[in-house]
Amino acid sequence: MAILNQEPPRFLKKGFRFGFGEEMEGVDYLTDERKTAQFDIEAMKVAWAGSRETLEVSDRMAKLVANDPVFEKFSRPMLGRKELFKNTLRKAAYAWKLIVSLGLSEEEAKWLRLYIDEPAFTDLHWGMFIPAIEGQGTEEQKQKWLPLAQKMQIIGCYAQTELGHGSNVQGLETTATFDPQTDEFVLHSPTLTSSKWWPGGLGKVSTHAIVYARLIVGGQFHGVHGFIVQLRSLEDHSPVDGITVGDIGLKFGNGAYNTMDNGVLRFDHVRIPRNQMLMRVSQVTKEGEIMQSDVPRQLIYGTMVYVRQTIVADASKALSRAVCIATRYSAVRRQFGSRNGGPETQVIDYKTQQNRLFPLLASAYAFRFVGEWLKWLYMDVKQRLAANDFSTLPEAHACTAGLKSLTTTATADGIEECRKLCGGHGYLVSSGLPELFAVYIPACTYEGDNVVLLLQVARFLVKTVSELGHKKPVGTTAYMGRAAGLLQTNCAVQTAEEWLNPGAIVEAFEARAARMAVGIAQRLAKFENPEQGFAELAADLVEASVAHCQLIVVSKFIEKLQQQDIRGKGVRESLEVLCYVYALFTLHKHQGDFLATGCLSPKQASLANDQLRTLYSKVRPNAVALVDSFSYTDHYLGSILGRYDGNVYPKLYEAAWEDPLNDSDVADGFHQYVQPMLKQKLLLSSAKL
Amino acid sequence: MAILNQEPPRFLKKGFRFGFGEEMEGVDYLTDERKTAQFDIEAMKVAWAGSRETLEVSDRMAKLVANDPVFEKFSRPMLGRKELFKNTLRKAAYAWKLIVSLGLSEEEAKWLRLYIDEPAFTDLHWGMFIPAIEGQGTEEQKQKWLPLAQKMQIIGCYAQTELGHGSNVQGLETTATFDPQTDEFVLHSPTLTSSKWWPGGLGKVSTHAIVYARLIVGGQFHGVHGFIVQLRSLEDHSPVDGITVGDIGLKFGNGAYNTMDNGVLRFDHVRIPRNQMLMRVSQVTKEGEIMQSDVPRQLIYGTMVYVRQTIVADASKALSRAVCIATRYSAVRRQFGSRNGGPETQVIDYKTQQNRLFPLLASAYAFRFVGEWLKWLYMDVKQRLAANDFSTLPEAHACTAGLKSLTTTATADGIEECRKLCGGHGYLVSSGLPELFAVYIPACTYEGDNVVLLLQVARFLVKTVSELGHKKPVGTTAYMGRAAGLLQTNCAVQTAEEWLNPGAIVEAFEARAARMAVGIAQRLAKFENPEQGFAELAADLVEASVAHCQLIVVSKFIEKLQQQDIRGKGVRESLEVLCYVYALFTLHKHQGDFLATGCLSPKQASLANDQLRTLYSKVRPNAVALVDSFSYTDHYLGSILGRYDGNVYPKLYEAAWEDPLNDSDVADGFHQYVQPMLKQKLLLSSAKL
Repeated sequence: MAILNQEPPRFLKKGFRFGFGEEMEGVDYLTDERKTAQFDIEAMKVAWAGSRETLEVSDRMAKLVANDPVFEKFSRPMLGRKELFKNTLRKAAYAWKLIVSLGLSEEEAKWLRLYIDEPAFTDLHWGMFIPAIEGQGTEEQKQKWLPLAQKMQIIGCYAQTELGHGSNVQGLETTATFDPQTDEFVLHSPTLTSSKWWPGGLGKVSTHAIVYARLIVGGQFHGVHGFIVQLRSLEDHSPVDGITVGDIGLKFGNGAYNTMDNGVLRFDHVRIPRNQMLMRVSQVTKEGEIMQSDVPRQLIYGTMVYVRQTIVADASKALSRAVCIATRYSAVRRQFGSRNGGPETQVIDYKTQQNRLFPLLASAYAFRFVGEWLKWLYMDVKQRLAANDFSTLPEAHACTAGLKSLTTTATADGIEECRKLCGGHGYLVSSGLPELFAVYIPACTYEGDNVVLLLQVARFLVKTVSELGHKKPVGTTAYMGRAAGLLQTNCAVQTAEEWLNPGAIVEAFEARAARMAVGIAQRLAKFENPEQGFAELAADLVEASVAHCQLIVVSKFIEKLQQQDIRGKGVRESLEVLCYVYALFTLHKHQGDFLATGCLSPKQASLANDQLRTLYSKVRPNAVALVDSFSYTDHYLGSILGRYDGNVYPKLYEAAWEDPLNDSDVADGFHQYVQPMLKQKLLLSSAKL
Repeated sequence: MAILNQEPPRFLKKGFRFGFGEEMEGVDYLTDERKTAQFDIEAMKVAWAGSRETLEVSDRMAKLVANDPVFEKFSRPMLGRKELFKNTLRKAAYAWKLIVSLGLSEEEAKWLRLYIDEPAFTDLHWGMFIPAIEGQGTEEQKQKWLPLAQKMQIIGCYAQTELGHGSNVQGLETTATFDPQTDEFVLHSPTLTSSKWWPGGLGKVSTHAIVYARLIVGGQFHGVHGFIVQLRSLEDHSPVDGITVGDIGLKFGNGAYNTMDNGVLRFDHVRIPRNQMLMRVSQVTKEGEIMQSDVPRQLIYGTMVYVRQTIVADASKALSRAVCIATRYSAVRRQFGSRNGGPETQVIDYKTQQNRLFPLLASAYAFRFVGEWLKWLYMDVKQRLAANDFSTLPEAHACTAGLKSLTTTATADGIEECRKLCGGHGYLVSSGLPELFAVYIPACTYEGDNVVLLLQVARFLVKTVSELGHKKPVGTTAYMGRAAGLLQTNCAVQTAEEWLNPGAIVEAFEARAARMAVGIAQRLAKFENPEQGFAELAADLVEASVAHCQLIVVSKFIEKLQQQDIRGKGVRESLEVLCYVYALFTLHKHQGDFLATGCLSPKQASLANDQLRTLYSKVRPNAVALVDSFSYTDHYLGSILGRYDGNVYPKLYEAAWEDPLNDSDVADGFHQYVQPMLKQKLLLSSAKL
């Protein structure tokens, strides 16, 4: 089996000897790079991980995965879809065996799955199916279904989106019609566009699904609800009568998300017992009556806050991986600048490279810390909900929606930028970056399209502005309470040095966000029909939301730096530099906003840009150590360019020979298609092409 | 053979009947869309193609490809590397057979290869190998090699880049040492990093290569030169003694560029006759003397101008394909906004969608016209070179370098944006967008990394500024001659309507570009060491170059609209709207530049943005017709979402069942890996996972 191929690489079999020149000792480059670090790297690892305990568990699980040949992933992009998928099933089963036999805790299992680094049906089973039952099921339903799911005696997924319907849940077409005669719901797909489409794990693995459908009782539509539906036999896995289920086909990338069986599902009058509607919030009685429980509907927003904060955490992981690869390779790669035949300049020393790479490095840290804060926010919301306090929910919901959008967009773009920063070699699958991009980008679409989310944030901001007279804004919108002052304030910065001041930075970002929000609210007020105004000014509303979200990221990074839990030589100082890089780069990139709203003068914006160059010089000696601090194994990185030891070129060369095209010196097809051409026998040839 | 599979799709074999609802009649949507067009679409097709004759040839070749089952490409992403590559050889041989047997002209053959839409060794053979001999070979060399190449009795590639060396040609390590004893050159790869790496067509097909190597004569280095080297036997295709050659492995995407055998090549003291050095410019005599011919060295810049103008032309093709897909699908797709159970709103009606899509539509046209102009520029340069007039060469070189960078970056980003504009379904390979992205992005790196090119442009701009006192700037930098005025000028726009004025737009773009160039030149002048200043301010230099290049695109679009050759009802008016969209969107996106340099007031920038929204409403009724005007067949588009008839959903559904995972209801691997899990027998199982 190719997966466990222990044979020497083809390259070695060819008996070719390396002609190493001295310039090949990439290992030395990175050793030198690590020597220049001005901070305690172990302490930085703790700061990144969040705590020493988390770092320990994370590292232990990373090594467990990295050292087990079953979790090999280098060959993944070369496998055909069937072989690829079968191998994912194998890894998932093996991981489950490990989890059970080693008695791993829930947290350990979570890290284990993360480091296996392969989308699989288990993601949806643990991440969506079980939480949906926990959140929306009655006590009785939880008692029946959770033990089965937790032992994996059933495997579930989350079937919401349809072929014709994504973001708009109220537009779903699948119907669940109550039949009081039999005390059952009849699930049906009335049109082609009502086919369930995209749910992960649905296509080939799940035995059950939470299906979202229009509830119809007595001929009346009663909103969209979730239903537990069995899809496949627990004996032989064949689809249940009336169900058509399959995979929706290839997705972006070579391996990437194709390890997942995103599925299509159609119902032809499929019957399920009444008690399989998730009834924590709404119930349908035997008699066909609709009852509302006293459980607040806002609970679903709590779930959204939870899911989206995990997406922000994932963004910092994906971006930091890409940045780690690009940073290490930029230190290995040399180009131009050779003097007297000496070595060329490391590309990481070019300001153009720094100006693209270091802001992404800073973003990875910024997103890590705002994600950590969001985790706290979710705990806070959860506690308040338990005490029936819904006061912070709209703000928390808007904040997580906005940060989900901001961080996933920046991460998707950032991964591709890192690929470009690796020049031509970044285009090779063995660089790891193409797969990282392809597997990551769905995050911009799932759990709320990023533009739709920013419009939700804008709606909340406009509402906050309109209520300023009588309602005190809370949390991340608290600065709006000072809007009157922020509309007047003048930035005091007069030298580049004065930009190294958290107060000045936060004030500038607050003033920009407040002025944009107030400005757009004023323009909206001129429309007779508010909804028409909202539609007309949508693009500007999105810009106001981005300004607000960037303020949150900057503020939370600064707050993090004021916390006591940052320890270790040079750690706080290095993070401060990154914080300034994030803030001033963002300021420069969006200087149009700052200038148009009069928050800054052109001179002040220009001083910020000058300071940015100085900051890059401060990042430079720490760059490699800052990515080492993510504590990623070479297995998890999955990139020859990002190898810890910097031994890039020999490994790229070796990997090339693994391609199936190199199985033979003369390509398959040469005699049929190339030789007749060379011999001018193509037209004479009777061989059918 | 899967390629010519004439069997009915699996989906039909399953006997499933569509449950079409009325909302499925996508065909009607696009018919309605086409009815609202305000221009003569046939005339617009001519405007896009450049002439009626070009349109005719292009359409005829497009149909020839689309109607021939050999050129089927839907299955491409599902094929393993070997099968994929073999099929490319088959298509290339078949295409050559067609070209010869139908007696196609050079122009027809070029269109044929374009519409086959599959990177192949022939691209390099015709596009690099033959032109290199034509440009750098002596008459004798041309007489010997060109007839062989033109009949494809030999197949060639262009071997310049090495594992450790890309942009910096002077850093190449491969050596060609003259041996006067035998009157031969000895080609050698002294280090691992000197391995040739990336050349297309090199890996498995080419029999010959133009190899760039350091010429060493009498122990002295005499610059990098090109050599014609045979790589493989013309009889059995086995590599020549001393040559190691192979494919460098998988690249980004499922099919994408993996149809190309980008190769690795090493020499172990390989000997070639002295007359295989390309000697048009420099000669090595039998006696080991280096002679320079009177052929001007600047010729190579002429070649660069040629190659880069073709890349700009390709950019408009790639971007227009993506825009065509996203526009049609945005008209088919509906989401939200349903009233009283009626249909939802077409997503193309949302301003957020328009604000992302329509500027890309405008860019596709802008790049088309600037590409057309570049073609003229190349002809002009060529004529001047023939008359020993080198005066315009530096400007033409900077201009093409800058436009190559600008258009390829915008196209790569634009394709990905179009994918996002298609929501989740854009992530499916059957949308065509993942492959289009993956196959396109190398254009940002090859023929000059886009950032490196912008730095070259900046160097030229700074030089132009420094010479203003005594040298009149020409061509696209002519406006610099009016720099003094442009530093003073005040934009006169006072209403949104006044932005619909080419004079005002060009003046604003000229003022911005001139002020940025002069500003950066002044800052550079403060450095004692100019090179140090150039390195330090590199990121700002890049921004000044972008401003200059955007001015060129805007100006050339406006000039095009003033030409007499735009005919047909409404054509000029529709293009004017696109031109304003391109200019004002660019202005808004970069308003930081315009405000920081004082070219515009915040109020004027805001008016431009207001006008942009009005313009979107003018584009809206013409949007589908504007992409129909590209005259692309469904075959060339290769996208279910972009189908001409808009029949998206049934075709997506059908395509899903083609995935190999749907060969059986129960997945391969179920019994080994899933069933033991469901049955809680994983730990007991003796089966090795």
